[in-house]
Amino acid sequence: MSVNVKQLAAEKAVEYVQDGMKVGLGTGSTAYWAIRKLGERVQQGLKITAVATSQASEDQARELGIPLVAFGDIDSLDLTIDGADELDGELQLIKGGGGALLREKIVAMGSTRMIVVADESKAVQTLGKFPLPVEIVPFAWEWTVAKLAKLGCKPELRRSGDELYKTDNGNYIADCRFEVIASAPELALSLQGISGVVDHGLFIGIASMAIIGKNDGSIEIIEGETHL
Amino acid sequence: MSVNVKQLAAEKAVEYVQDGMKVGLGTGSTAYWAIRKLGERVQQGLKITAVATSQASEDQARELGIPLVAFGDIDSLDLTIDGADELDGELQLIKGGGGALLREKIVAMGSTRMIVVADESKAVQTLGKFPLPVEIVPFAWEWTVAKLAKLGCKPELRRSGDELYKTDNGNYIADCRFEVIASAPELALSLQGISGVVDHGLFIGIASMAIIGKNDGSIEIIEGETHL
Repeated sequence: MSVNVKQLAAEKAVEYVQDGMKVGLGTGSTAYWAIRKLGERVQQGLKITAVATSQASEDQARELGIPLVAFGDIDSLDLTIDGADELDGELQLIKGGGGALLREKIVAMGSTRMIVVADESKAVQTLGKFPLPVEIVPFAWEWTVAKLAKLGCKPELRRSGDELYKTDNGNYIADCRFEVIASAPELALSLQGISGVVDHGLFIGIASMAIIGKNDGSIEIIEGETHL
Repeated sequence: MSVNVKQLAAEKAVEYVQDGMKVGLGTGSTAYWAIRKLGERVQQGLKITAVATSQASEDQARELGIPLVAFGDIDSLDLTIDGADELDGELQLIKGGGGALLREKIVAMGSTRMIVVADESKAVQTLGKFPLPVEIVPFAWEWTVAKLAKLGCKPELRRSGDELYKTDNGNYIADCRFEVIASAPELALSLQGISGVVDHGLFIGIASMAIIGKNDGSIEIIEGETHL
C-alpha cells in the first residue's frame, strides 16, 4: 500500500490543534484529510469551534460533528490549516486553483497562525509554474486582462463548461501563467494596484509553517514567523 | 439668476473634446452637465465614441444621440470627464459617493487623460472630511470593517433603506470617516493590502486636470501630468 502523502501532512498539522482553539478549515484534497482527522479528535472530546472557507468544507465539518461558527460571531482565529497549489522555502504560496482564494486569504489573514499542508509536488524553488489565479470584476474585464498581460504573464479566463467560471463573490478568475515569479512581493503590489483586480492567489507573509508530506513517508517542516 | 457652477466647470471641460476622440463619461450631478454639453456638440457634428460609467450616464448619452461603445470593442480612451467628492491641489481625489467608484476608476485609468469637474465646495487642502468609500466583499465583511477601523477611521456600511447597499459588482460600501488623510498614497497602499477590499475611492495620479467652477462665476484650472 502506497503512502497517502496528503493525509500524512494533514494529520501532522492537526496535532497543533488544542482544546479551546478557533480553527479555520481550508479547502481542497489535502485540507480534506485535515478536516477528517479533526473530526476524529472532536469525537474523542477535543473542544474547538471552526470556520470553513467553502461550502464543501463546511458540509464535511458538519457531518463530522465539528462545531461551526459564523464570521460575525468571532473576531479572530487561532489556527488555519489549508493546502496550497505551490509553496517555496520562504513560505510564499500560490493558492486559488480551486477558485476560493479570497475566502481562503481572508480566513488565513484573520488567523494568528496558518499551517500549510501539501505533498512534495507542491514545493518549488521559485513560484510561477502553477498559473496564478487572479480574481477580477466582470466589468471591463478585457481591460483588466490586458493589464495583467503587461505584467509578463499569459492570462486566461477560467471556464466552467461553456461559461466563464464565477467565484462565490460573482467575479471571474484569470489564471496567469508567469512560469517564473522573480519577486512575489513586488508582483503582489503590482496586482493590488490594478483596478478591476479583487484579489490574487499570492499568499506572502501569511503562512507560519508548512508541513510537506514526502513520497518516502517522511515529513518536512518549514517554520516561519506568525504574521500577527 | 445665480451661476450654475457645476455647469460652468463641466462645459469648460467639454471644450477639450476633439473630433475622433474616445471619451469616458462620468457619473453624478456635474458629469451630467458635461454629457449634456457633449450631446449638443455631437448634434452640431462632433464625431466621438463614448463609454459610460453608469446606467444613468449611458441612458442620458443615448437620449442625446452620443454614440456608445462597449468596453470590449476598444482598448483605451482618450479623455474621461468625471466629477469628484473631494479634490486637493495635487489632483488627488475622493470619489465613489455615488457608489460607482470601481467602474469610474477602471474607466479613468484606461484613459490617456482625465479631467475632473467640480464646484469649489469640493476643493480642499487635505482630503478626508468626505467619508472615503471603500468597496468590500460581503464575505466576512465584519473582519474587513474591523481592519478598516484599525487604519484610523470610523467605517460605516452604506445602507439603502432597510438593506445594505450593494454595488453593481454585488459588493458592500464602507464609508470611512478619516477627517484627515495625511498621506493618500500610503493609505491607498494600506487599503489595497487588505483582503476583502475590492477597491477604494482614492484616485491618485489619475486626474490630469481639474476644472473648478467658482461661485463668483470664474473658473480655476489645476493642471498635472497625464498618468499614461
